[in-house]
Amino acid sequence: MLNKLINPEIQDLLIKKNFAVLKEIVDELELADVAEIVADLPENLRAIFFRILHTNLAADVFEYIEPETQLEIIKSLSNAEAAKILNEMSPDDRTSFLEELPSSVTKKLIGLLNTEEREIALSLLAYPEYSVGRLLTTDFIAVTQDMTIAAAFDYIRKYGNDSETVNVIYVVNEQDILIDDIKIRTLIFANPNQKIEEILDKNYISLNVYDDQEKAIEYFKKYDRVALPVTDSAGVLLGMVTIDDVFDIAEEEATEDIHRFGGTEAIEEPYLNISLKRMIQKRAIWLSVLFLGELLTASVMAYFEEEISKAVVLALFVPLIISSGGNSGSQAATLVIRAMALHEISIKNWFFVLKREIMSGIILGSILGILGFLRVFIWGKYLGVYGEYWMLIGFTVSFALIGVVTWGTLMGGMLPILLKKIGLDPATSSAPFVATLVDVVGIIIYFSFAFFLLKGTLL
Amino acid sequence: MLNKLINPEIQDLLIKKNFAVLKEIVDELELADVAEIVADLPENLRAIFFRILHTNLAADVFEYIEPETQLEIIKSLSNAEAAKILNEMSPDDRTSFLEELPSSVTKKLIGLLNTEEREIALSLLAYPEYSVGRLLTTDFIAVTQDMTIAAAFDYIRKYGNDSETVNVIYVVNEQDILIDDIKIRTLIFANPNQKIEEILDKNYISLNVYDDQEKAIEYFKKYDRVALPVTDSAGVLLGMVTIDDVFDIAEEEATEDIHRFGGTEAIEEPYLNISLKRMIQKRAIWLSVLFLGELLTASVMAYFEEEISKAVVLALFVPLIISSGGNSGSQAATLVIRAMALHEISIKNWFFVLKREIMSGIILGSILGILGFLRVFIWGKYLGVYGEYWMLIGFTVSFALIGVVTWGTLMGGMLPILLKKIGLDPATSSAPFVATLVDVVGIIIYFSFAFFLLKGTLL
Repeated sequence: MLNKLINPEIQDLLIKKNFAVLKEIVDELELADVAEIVADLPENLRAIFFRILHTNLAADVFEYIEPETQLEIIKSLSNAEAAKILNEMSPDDRTSFLEELPSSVTKKLIGLLNTEEREIALSLLAYPEYSVGRLLTTDFIAVTQDMTIAAAFDYIRKYGNDSETVNVIYVVNEQDILIDDIKIRTLIFANPNQKIEEILDKNYISLNVYDDQEKAIEYFKKYDRVALPVTDSAGVLLGMVTIDDVFDIAEEEATEDIHRFGGTEAIEEPYLNISLKRMIQKRAIWLSVLFLGELLTASVMAYFEEEISKAVVLALFVPLIISSGGNSGSQAATLVIRAMALHEISIKNWFFVLKREIMSGIILGSILGILGFLRVFIWGKYLGVYGEYWMLIGFTVSFALIGVVTWGTLMGGMLPILLKKIGLDPATSSAPFVATLVDVVGIIIYFSFAFFLLKGTLL
Repeated sequence: MLNKLINPEIQDLLIKKNFAVLKEIVDELELADVAEIVADLPENLRAIFFRILHTNLAADVFEYIEPETQLEIIKSLSNAEAAKILNEMSPDDRTSFLEELPSSVTKKLIGLLNTEEREIALSLLAYPEYSVGRLLTTDFIAVTQDMTIAAAFDYIRKYGNDSETVNVIYVVNEQDILIDDIKIRTLIFANPNQKIEEILDKNYISLNVYDDQEKAIEYFKKYDRVALPVTDSAGVLLGMVTIDDVFDIAEEEATEDIHRFGGTEAIEEPYLNISLKRMIQKRAIWLSVLFLGELLTASVMAYFEEEISKAVVLALFVPLIISSGGNSGSQAATLVIRAMALHEISIKNWFFVLKREIMSGIILGSILGILGFLRVFIWGKYLGVYGEYWMLIGFTVSFALIGVVTWGTLMGGMLPILLKKIGLDPATSSAPFVATLVDVVGIIIYFSFAFFLLKGTLL
């Protein structure tokens, strides 16, 4: 809000080249707010803005900007200026910027880095996507056991400046193997003449650099840490992951799932930034797949064409019945998928889910069945819209509802577990996906009941 | 995993009353892991387990346990034992435990607290639900400007033990009004003889105790803090909120939204813990509401009964058409709702969304329209299932699809914004909700096209 307000003023100062005042204002602001202002600036002013910031401040601000905008800025700067910023960036934020770019651009930018930073950048980008390695920052502090607390503090003062956080200090042995982590509080409370080894509890939580980022999320939630050390399989300390990055990842994952739930490919770009073309692409794929599935309903309906022509009244309830199955199915799918995402249930709970969803299905189906019967009863008995056999129709509709809803909950509950079992993402069995499956079978269930109940009367 | 493995051993030690060994094992474990073990213990052993832990360790472990289990444990302990734990708990975790309980139980437990803690507990529970106040911990460290850095450190060593974190220190004036926050790193790097006031930048982010918890989430994500100070409207520092609690809240909110997306009341309890009865209640409400909405489809279909009886073939495509509308609608709703939750778009962007979704609808509808026509073309021309007028039917289906899909995206896109505008939760316009709305209108659109295109031939 505030940012939007002062933005014109900032632009004005930039155009008037009143950089002194501009710097004062910027110093008053949070990095995140400066980043927002930059994002709202017209492209031509962005470059000027970054030129007047001190390199390290420029880099700090740069880290808070969206990848697309980051790229525009880098392009608008000279190679020398871009190099300064890229070299100053913290390794993890640099990775998340570089990994978003087309590989040609990434190569070019890595070329701008100095030898040391280039090595770091390349090693981090070498880790698989969605692995902890991609979140790694190599700016951390590690001390050795033989140091005294006082010496450790001197060390922190000397090298802690670049470290992303000093809230946790790591202890390694001669082979750089992680031995323990120490909260800064423990150091502060300890006697300065004590040796580090005297305050170790040798009891720490660490991540492997190849772990899935989901594990990082799980650990941060469970163990309430602000940073976790990351090692290779030999236990060598490679760096750390900080909670702010994991927080962002967790949100992205939730968004991905939510999008899949809505029956669309996960879309990373903000709604306002993504191009219509890209959005159509993301949405058309799933919509078409679902459509091809739904085409089966036309075939199934055609199969019952004779029944329908004999008793058109049956057609009237088709939308009601299939949508009820679809809704109950998406409920079940949503609950089970989310429960799996939160590690509340796993594949081995399949039987519990099976029982639970069948029971729910029968009960929920009966509730809708009664509502459905009441509707046919009232319209049929008092408005006479369903002819003489309204009661039979009523029973057909209610029984069909019980059957369809039970089928829906069963599908919705089991499909995510099945997908997980065969190694696919459970979230793929989204509400629309389940609904489509349920529609086809739903029609069959409905007309089968009709066939048995109305044979000799309407059929 | 590990926990499950050593659980039998723990039980064995408890039964054998081999508490010495037990304590050793517990000291080796993370609090969160001990909590998991406790949760898996049979009720009768839980109390024993807590009795052998030192009070403060017991309280720390207790904070990691689920509310339901927490209550069982408290009930199984003597009042004196329960009081010890409740008095030791950190205020924020105690609030989130107490607020879950029936008020009678809450009263009883608050009665066990000592005067000081009782005052804290009552004041925190007095803040509105979902307000920052409910996340507040009063265990923080505040220093004054006139202190030297060295004095500040002494102060931290003296009073920092209870503080939930020492990563950030707060600076207040004589009226306890918040002046600034200082990262512990800044203190460490500063010269011990400097005064606090010399290292202040007077530039901090704080929350108001009555702010919505959503704001806390937004701030932590945006400003990358591990803790934020909380003040009253006069600026008096009341306490702080730590990122671990906000992380949990963020996840709960995502779960709530996801559940609503699936067309069910938000369910807090884990899938495995919630009773069938409660789950049915949560699900039946929405399912019935949606069902009552879907009943309209039966009326609309009845309205077109004559057309259907004349051209039964029309009925065959009803499921296909309404489900396509439903799917496109849930896509749009999902994207817009999530974008609003992430503050990517707000009400004022309604016109952009309107244009975007209409365009998407027309394009996506055309894609499905073509697929639909192809289907009718092949089945009609080569299998002859749709009679002599198959081409007209094909056009009817395609145009209906364009119309229905556009209507679906429009509904899905605008409804969340509308709900927000009138002060309701956008997530209420979940996929099934939109689908239901679209179904009814979809049938009308379809039969209207049929009416105009097939008049004089099939109709």
